[in-house]
Amino acid sequence: MQSLHVVKIGGNIIDDPLKLYQFLEDFSALDGLKVLVHGGGKIASAIGQQLGIEPKMMNGRRITDEETLRIVTMVYGGLVNKNVVAQLQAFGCDSIGLTGADANIIQATKRPVGEINYGFAGDIKGPESINTAILTAFLQNSLTPVLAPLTHNGQGTMLNTNADTIASSIAVALAQNFDVHLMYCFEKKGVLRDVNDDASVISSVSKEEYAQLKEEGIIAAGMIPKLDNAMKAIQEGVQSVYICHADDVLEIVKHKAALGTKLYT
Amino acid sequence: MQSLHVVKIGGNIIDDPLKLYQFLEDFSALDGLKVLVHGGGKIASAIGQQLGIEPKMMNGRRITDEETLRIVTMVYGGLVNKNVVAQLQAFGCDSIGLTGADANIIQATKRPVGEINYGFAGDIKGPESINTAILTAFLQNSLTPVLAPLTHNGQGTMLNTNADTIASSIAVALAQNFDVHLMYCFEKKGVLRDVNDDASVISSVSKEEYAQLKEEGIIAAGMIPKLDNAMKAIQEGVQSVYICHADDVLEIVKHKAALGTKLYT
Repeated sequence: MQSLHVVKIGGNIIDDPLKLYQFLEDFSALDGLKVLVHGGGKIASAIGQQLGIEPKMMNGRRITDEETLRIVTMVYGGLVNKNVVAQLQAFGCDSIGLTGADANIIQATKRPVGEINYGFAGDIKGPESINTAILTAFLQNSLTPVLAPLTHNGQGTMLNTNADTIASSIAVALAQNFDVHLMYCFEKKGVLRDVNDDASVISSVSKEEYAQLKEEGIIAAGMIPKLDNAMKAIQEGVQSVYICHADDVLEIVKHKAALGTKLYT
Repeated sequence: MQSLHVVKIGGNIIDDPLKLYQFLEDFSALDGLKVLVHGGGKIASAIGQQLGIEPKMMNGRRITDEETLRIVTMVYGGLVNKNVVAQLQAFGCDSIGLTGADANIIQATKRPVGEINYGFAGDIKGPESINTAILTAFLQNSLTPVLAPLTHNGQGTMLNTNADTIASSIAVALAQNFDVHLMYCFEKKGVLRDVNDDASVISSVSKEEYAQLKEEGIIAAGMIPKLDNAMKAIQEGVQSVYICHADDVLEIVKHKAALGTKLYT
């Protein structure tokens, strides 16, 4: 099967025009098939506040009320997504910006109201919610999909959806047709053994080692959801997951540099 | 060749949720291949004003400065485009929202600064600026392209572009591969012989009749750019152009109702 890289960049890169430009140049230079998934960044909150809409958070998670949904739809799906695509085109990477609604790529369900009402937050059921056929057709047409963190419910409503989850769901679904490598890019060099020491990157973690690192409390609490998600993707057919600095993507893919943290079965 | 309808809806429909919903239901029910091009509507100006950015106009045309470009990119490319696509998906029409940057569908050039500096306004050179191959591939994959009034310059910058021009450029380019019918939908029943009489619709206009109507001053000044554009599309290979009420699209296409104004060679 052909190799495919699914690369996710977070809000910290989106928020910094210079970092974003550098990252997109590197991403454009990656050989072979690829998909980019981007987070939202703080710009949605900033524009929301300018419009008099205060960000609503609960347990560190954003509450997407109707006004917030309008903001994230325009900022993530319009401003961020289209500027990323235009820049990739300038670097010679023929990309296509998509939300889950476009070509029905990701259908999600509105999160049920429990103790907290998250509002218009979308949960992806599994690979069956992903339109693998059309994504594969785009890739075969030499297009690089660029996904915003938005899905739809199939009934006319957009839904705000976590970009990490979109990246792993897409990676798992496409693992039916490709050898998928999933890369989570952020502002650290990888998973750190000591959160205060940027040089303490754990270079590789097998499934067994992961269980042990968690048990020993070496993996920081904040990283656990990300790593659980990554391990789940591997169990469901993804070849490997990298957690690495955005600056290192090209080195890792093109020059097989031993940077970042590689998770594998 | 297969028949294809390129349908353009203006800002008046975009601005009215109920009218838009009804139009999208009708559009979804159109048989065969189709493309939707939407204008921007007043919502960009409204959001801009909320953000403290006053719309800048010159001779009735919008000046797109850098701040305005950000607004139209997020409102046209995000808010409007994605909500239209999500609603079409709900009606069972598998659509894909696109700006000119996506899949490099429309590359434009920034309008040269003359007496007026229009800012980030994009001019489309001609059918060679349209990526006909990928649009055709989408249509063959049963996808309905939904185009926002935005293009890009190929160097990383989005450009604000007139939706009528996008519709006619797309129609002419696709006339290489399809029997194209271009439909401009607005809030009047068609081209009126008497602007004060909504019942005075001119039902069909040939190329010769058009020259005569213009000479006689029967066609109102405001309609001339639209009709010149329409006649040009016909001369360049489009089969017919309809100028009609948004409510009448389904009747015209499905039931061949003699509504609106039909332009032909």
